[in-house]
Amino acid sequence: MKTLSTLVLVASTLGFAGAASAQFAKPEDAIKYRKNALFVMQQHYARIGAMVGGKVPFDAKAAADNAAVAESMSKLPWAAFGEGTDKGDTKAKPEIWTEQAKFKAGADKMQAEMTKLAAAARTGNLDNIKTAFAATSDTCKACHDNYRAK
Amino acid sequence: MKTLSTLVLVASTLGFAGAASAQFAKPEDAIKYRKNALFVMQQHYARIGAMVGGKVPFDAKAAADNAAVAESMSKLPWAAFGEGTDKGDTKAKPEIWTEQAKFKAGADKMQAEMTKLAAAARTGNLDNIKTAFAATSDTCKACHDNYRAK
Repeated sequence: MKTLSTLVLVASTLGFAGAASAQFAKPEDAIKYRKNALFVMQQHYARIGAMVGGKVPFDAKAAADNAAVAESMSKLPWAAFGEGTDKGDTKAKPEIWTEQAKFKAGADKMQAEMTKLAAAARTGNLDNIKTAFAATSDTCKACHDNYRAK
Repeated sequence: MKTLSTLVLVASTLGFAGAASAQFAKPEDAIKYRKNALFVMQQHYARIGAMVGGKVPFDAKAAADNAAVAESMSKLPWAAFGEGTDKGDTKAKPEIWTEQAKFKAGADKMQAEMTKLAAAARTGNLDNIKTAFAATSDTCKACHDNYRAK
């Protein structure tokens, strides 16, 4: 059941992102959009990380709220990696466009883990959050290692 | 009932934004965050505007999806206008901090209108969307006129 509900969530996420994508007026807008969406996500994600790492006291409500925003934000960047957005003010590596299936699998995995993190945060249990946070962070790192230039 | 449900939505929005705010590591992060969140919101909002203005064909699902994202994004920027974030790479005018109650009222009004726009978009009726879009745009303009430097 857990796997099924995760699959349903992932499917609805993809449908959502696709429908909301439309066109960007210019490639620069797409590049700016995906960087902006990822920065907003990272800011909320880092607040959970600070609790996970013991740098700030655990606050169950703040963790759940930040995880909910990070989950919402995790759906947005992917529609902005269209053709023609590989050049410009971006660290995106060309492999994103030559390995599209692999890149998409990584993006999907990240969204699925972020959804699990949001669910874990709603339990209010820090150990659950730590486990989900570690799994989510692995998906961030995998994509950055493969697809983001230093 | 409509007014009540709007009030409940607005109240929950404010609670959400407050709880998810936490601290930004640096004032620059807060400035970048609010600009990034507003840009993401604007991109989705503009897609509804293109339909309202007849520049692209009306697509009820795209309108509803984009309005839902714009509504979510409308909740985020305000926590990033804290003390010490008036200087730096920002067009924010000093009046934001000397007229905090008025600025907050404008931000609250924008979120309320964006919530109404998302509800209108869910009806799938373009005339409803046009009315709500115009009211929402007025709240964007009011804040930009008063609180954003040219």
